[in-house]
Amino acid sequence: MVDSKLDTLQYISTPHMIEGYELIENKLNLVERLLLDVQPDQHSLITDAAQELIKAGGKRIRAAICLLSAGIFEADPEISLALAAGIEMLHTATLVHDDIIDESVIRRGKPTLNAKRDPKLSVLIGDYFFARAANLVAETDNLDIMKQFSATLMTILNGEVDQQFTRWQLDRQGYTKRIYAKTGAMFVLAAKSAAILGDATPQEILALENYGHFTGIAFQVVDDILDFTSEQTRLGKPVGGDLREGIFTLPVLLYADRYPQDPDLKLLLKVQDGNHPAVGRLINSIRRSGIIDDALGEAKELVSRGQLALTELPQSQFTEALYSMGNTVVERVT
Amino acid sequence: MVDSKLDTLQYISTPHMIEGYELIENKLNLVERLLLDVQPDQHSLITDAAQELIKAGGKRIRAAICLLSAGIFEADPEISLALAAGIEMLHTATLVHDDIIDESVIRRGKPTLNAKRDPKLSVLIGDYFFARAANLVAETDNLDIMKQFSATLMTILNGEVDQQFTRWQLDRQGYTKRIYAKTGAMFVLAAKSAAILGDATPQEILALENYGHFTGIAFQVVDDILDFTSEQTRLGKPVGGDLREGIFTLPVLLYADRYPQDPDLKLLLKVQDGNHPAVGRLINSIRRSGIIDDALGEAKELVSRGQLALTELPQSQFTEALYSMGNTVVERVT
Repeated sequence: MVDSKLDTLQYISTPHMIEGYELIENKLNLVERLLLDVQPDQHSLITDAAQELIKAGGKRIRAAICLLSAGIFEADPEISLALAAGIEMLHTATLVHDDIIDESVIRRGKPTLNAKRDPKLSVLIGDYFFARAANLVAETDNLDIMKQFSATLMTILNGEVDQQFTRWQLDRQGYTKRIYAKTGAMFVLAAKSAAILGDATPQEILALENYGHFTGIAFQVVDDILDFTSEQTRLGKPVGGDLREGIFTLPVLLYADRYPQDPDLKLLLKVQDGNHPAVGRLINSIRRSGIIDDALGEAKELVSRGQLALTELPQSQFTEALYSMGNTVVERVT
Repeated sequence: MVDSKLDTLQYISTPHMIEGYELIENKLNLVERLLLDVQPDQHSLITDAAQELIKAGGKRIRAAICLLSAGIFEADPEISLALAAGIEMLHTATLVHDDIIDESVIRRGKPTLNAKRDPKLSVLIGDYFFARAANLVAETDNLDIMKQFSATLMTILNGEVDQQFTRWQLDRQGYTKRIYAKTGAMFVLAAKSAAILGDATPQEILALENYGHFTGIAFQVVDDILDFTSEQTRLGKPVGGDLREGIFTLPVLLYADRYPQDPDLKLLLKVQDGNHPAVGRLINSIRRSGIIDDALGEAKELVSRGQLALTELPQSQFTEALYSMGNTVVERVT
């Protein structure tokens, strides 16, 4: 019965599903143009890499959150676009470097830059995107936002270093911290910086910070669920990839809580080898256990907390669209 | 006769040699403390890497230029320190990633982070330093400086990508552009941003921009000369390293201008192989040719142009120290 659910899984570009998408559709297209914008003197290899990475798609959920949050407070439209593009560019930069770290060969269903070119070039291209991201965010002419930007990048990288050295560990608290660093922090940046740009009150800024926080970590939990439930063709990358790397995400942690004596789990904790046949068996056990529903329940709870934060904000079509965005985060797996 | 000169080569930490060093000695110590400052929640591996990299030394010439430039305009002392530390941190970040690109195993006479640890970790640690650099620079609360910072980083990375793909090419114009991106741009950032911080006039800011420009590229030319003239123990890295990588610096370009028919040069341009025995022979030919003196002459000319720019500034002990700094750049090889 649980298995049959797998057939209905979908991995959909989230912003297109939200109610009120028309509020930001044109703006997202303009963000796309900014992301592809060629800077004076930009090396053709950087332009090629940018074209390839940007055109490969991505959900642009961070840009959507930024634009919707900016919409609530009628923040300057042009500057909102630069901010949204800066945040997406920051996200792209982290993906480029992530792929070096993970030695990924597939991302978004396509070969990574890393696989197609010298990984050393990917280091420089990722760096350039960081610089361009900072450059776009600087167009806000807002110091608070610039500070938020660099602090967010520090949080993300701290989390990444941490992830490299906490493999094969059943650590729920560590997981929560890691997914905040990995995804929550950038969702917070998207929502909060737009509120700052729109001269929101401290209470409103905090509300959007909370919305970004809970929606972001819910999004990561769902990503971690999809890593178990999707088929490779839909996921766009190998299934169970985190577990193979010794990175324990929510489904593994919940499964270990319920079945601490599972022999495959115990074996893997001992041998710490992602190529061991026990990995495949454990993935199947997790898929069949009903744990996925529990994990999804946690994601829904997180989404609700994010949506609750929205009640502190002026009600508008933009606020409703952010509410709807929360739903789509969990609808990715239902 | 030329060879005997090699014995007198020195590779000295530049700021300590300048007249007026006492103006910034205490401040440089405080910059050092800022560079080592552990941020809230910072992963111990990042702290370890920072300790190691920062304590390995480095000339802090960028910090010195920044502090001296700030001194001319009596810029806020505390904020000047953060700016100087941010620029040094940016420099450190680029070195960490450079070492991955170059697969360097020795830097500043010590094994690189890259050689001692997983290069993939070096990607993240470099990224963290970029973020921390932006974070320190943000303490200036100055948007112009923040924009200058991200634009400089873009210039540097454009230059690095360019360097990866212009190997084994006798291109003087490309060299000039590359050394600006590699070293000039950050010297400009150090001098110009301090002037901005000190509310200097546009003319004064331009003067310091020019000083940074010419002093920076002179510094790089001297570095490129030292790559040929130093002994490995003094240089702290292998001699002729750039040539072995197919990166043609000023001594090679001048030599090729004068001896276009040199058989080793012609052979290398054809085989494009840094491990070919012709590399060692060409290095020796360059060392014996007197070309080094010509290259040094060009460096001195660049330094003079930087010093000339200082005449546009209010005269003070700080301006004099910057003048002296120019001299020490070329004194490294005389």
